[in-house]
Amino acid sequence: MSIKPIEYRDGILRMIDQRLLPTEETWLEYTDYREVAEAIRSMVVRGAPAIGVAAAFGAAFGARDIEAENFEAFYPEFEKVCALLAATRPTAVNLFWALDRMKHFARANAAYPPADLKTGLLFEAMAIADEDDRLNRTMGRHGQALIPEQARVLTHCNAGALATGGYGTALGVIRAAVAAGKKVAVYADETRPFLQGSRLTAWELQKDKIPVTLICDNMAGYLMSKGEIDCVIVGADRIAANGDVANKIGTYTVAVLAKEHGLPFYVAAPLSTIDLSIPDGSHIPIEERDRREVTHSGERQLAPEGIEVRNPAFDVTPARLVTAIITEKGVVQGDYQSGLQALFGKGR
Amino acid sequence: MSIKPIEYRDGILRMIDQRLLPTEETWLEYTDYREVAEAIRSMVVRGAPAIGVAAAFGAAFGARDIEAENFEAFYPEFEKVCALLAATRPTAVNLFWALDRMKHFARANAAYPPADLKTGLLFEAMAIADEDDRLNRTMGRHGQALIPEQARVLTHCNAGALATGGYGTALGVIRAAVAAGKKVAVYADETRPFLQGSRLTAWELQKDKIPVTLICDNMAGYLMSKGEIDCVIVGADRIAANGDVANKIGTYTVAVLAKEHGLPFYVAAPLSTIDLSIPDGSHIPIEERDRREVTHSGERQLAPEGIEVRNPAFDVTPARLVTAIITEKGVVQGDYQSGLQALFGKGR
Repeated sequence: MSIKPIEYRDGILRMIDQRLLPTEETWLEYTDYREVAEAIRSMVVRGAPAIGVAAAFGAAFGARDIEAENFEAFYPEFEKVCALLAATRPTAVNLFWALDRMKHFARANAAYPPADLKTGLLFEAMAIADEDDRLNRTMGRHGQALIPEQARVLTHCNAGALATGGYGTALGVIRAAVAAGKKVAVYADETRPFLQGSRLTAWELQKDKIPVTLICDNMAGYLMSKGEIDCVIVGADRIAANGDVANKIGTYTVAVLAKEHGLPFYVAAPLSTIDLSIPDGSHIPIEERDRREVTHSGERQLAPEGIEVRNPAFDVTPARLVTAIITEKGVVQGDYQSGLQALFGKGR
Repeated sequence: MSIKPIEYRDGILRMIDQRLLPTEETWLEYTDYREVAEAIRSMVVRGAPAIGVAAAFGAAFGARDIEAENFEAFYPEFEKVCALLAATRPTAVNLFWALDRMKHFARANAAYPPADLKTGLLFEAMAIADEDDRLNRTMGRHGQALIPEQARVLTHCNAGALATGGYGTALGVIRAAVAAGKKVAVYADETRPFLQGSRLTAWELQKDKIPVTLICDNMAGYLMSKGEIDCVIVGADRIAANGDVANKIGTYTVAVLAKEHGLPFYVAAPLSTIDLSIPDGSHIPIEERDRREVTHSGERQLAPEGIEVRNPAFDVTPARLVTAIITEKGVVQGDYQSGLQALFGKGR
């Protein structure tokens, strides 16, 4: 039973503070959409699908507080709420996908009085959360067939239960392989600067008793050169129509290393991460985050005062380096352009 | 005027504590060879050439304390001193090179009384330190021709003044390029887990007013893919007869990335780093260091209690990925096997 980082009950959204893991398990409570937006920006919650879920609840909270007698008064205010939530982080498309879905729900139910619409939006947010957990399990079943017996699997960042509504994308595939009786050993890149690998992936796999070994990001190439890695699996923050994958900074380097060593490089992501509106990865905005993430560890100063810093939070792995994209609707290989498009035609 | 991390005066060896940089400039004093050995092991001093210099002084201190009336009584004790110093770190060959040179000096001067031999050994250690600074400047002149005008140069770890008797190997080449009037901008990989890039390279280049931008190790691939890096230059801890290069963990990954992007990958190292006794990199022992370097930052715990960790401190970059090896005797390209061999035939 993997952890769920986001829980909703009785009007309160509870999220585990992912900045404090693995040493502190603190749950924060939210009832205001502006605070939810700040939680996304400051990475209390992170991971593309989890950001989508949190934003959906934020939108429902914002809707709840709108005083409007009819849809015409309600909807412009609701759009403002969604715009504020959308302005938190630019790269993961699940954020925009979830907010679009909430807006679409509102428009589709414009005939109802605002009070009913507000209740409906809350149920829609709950549906997004529930679906995310469920589709990760389906994705896991599709993807686990790609994981060999006794596989030593490298993952980067955290595409686990903590990054989603539950179970995980990349780690969901690993969980499904373990559930299928395979002996899988995971290598987790620590993933500087935010350390999602050491703080989150190592933590949640250890909790699930899945063997995991922590390494620094710059050690993966060495282990591959020694024949100690069999395949790579990562999540995604946005996948373009041609199969280019934006994911946590360092993913591209892992993909280049996998190619150099002839290892498969898998990406696991739900359809909500696929953005058919952009032709390729060059159109994906890459967030640059605060220099302090690089120059400090907690209060400890790691670099000289005033040093120049670059801190891109994501990079783009070109489709040619991706062996397969694993989704809840199946696995796409080869021609991503038509393969990804086709997924959206399939029934649930 | 770049910093010298090791100073000898009046019987005392002073070394800047590289574990405390960049926030504290603390100089530690040494007069006992066992303490020098511990300083090497605990990385008060690090960097292949600097380790060699420190070990040479350690050997001279150990020799000073040997009570022996003649060479036959002196030399076995001196060998024990050298063995203890040699058992500190396995990968950098400069350590063994410096100790071999000290032992050779002792044997070559066996006819002198031990008191004179002890003085001679101290002068030999001073000579090793002085030569290292001087040959780095020569290496810089040879290497700087490879650095283009306006070059944006990526470096990994610290192969600077702090890693040597002064001036630096890789950073010596950059200093020489700057001295030749070229506008060079450096990108420094932070170099987990010990952070030689953020703590040392950024610090010493900032002091010298050479433009430097700090990045996490996993960001170099992104910058290369954006066309923001023109070449790579690193140091080395040991170079095999065929040109395979052992250097700080992560160097191999940078070399693979450079190949993927068609960028030159240069290695700068003195002849004391070249180990013709081993045919290729597979014979270079790779030190695995303490797990705590990965799991903690100072007192801050970054990973869950009890997690498995790998912490190889070095990796091997195969010669096929190395564009050129820059030494104090000139630049070797192409056939490293004969090229490196030939360097040792050249006069000083």
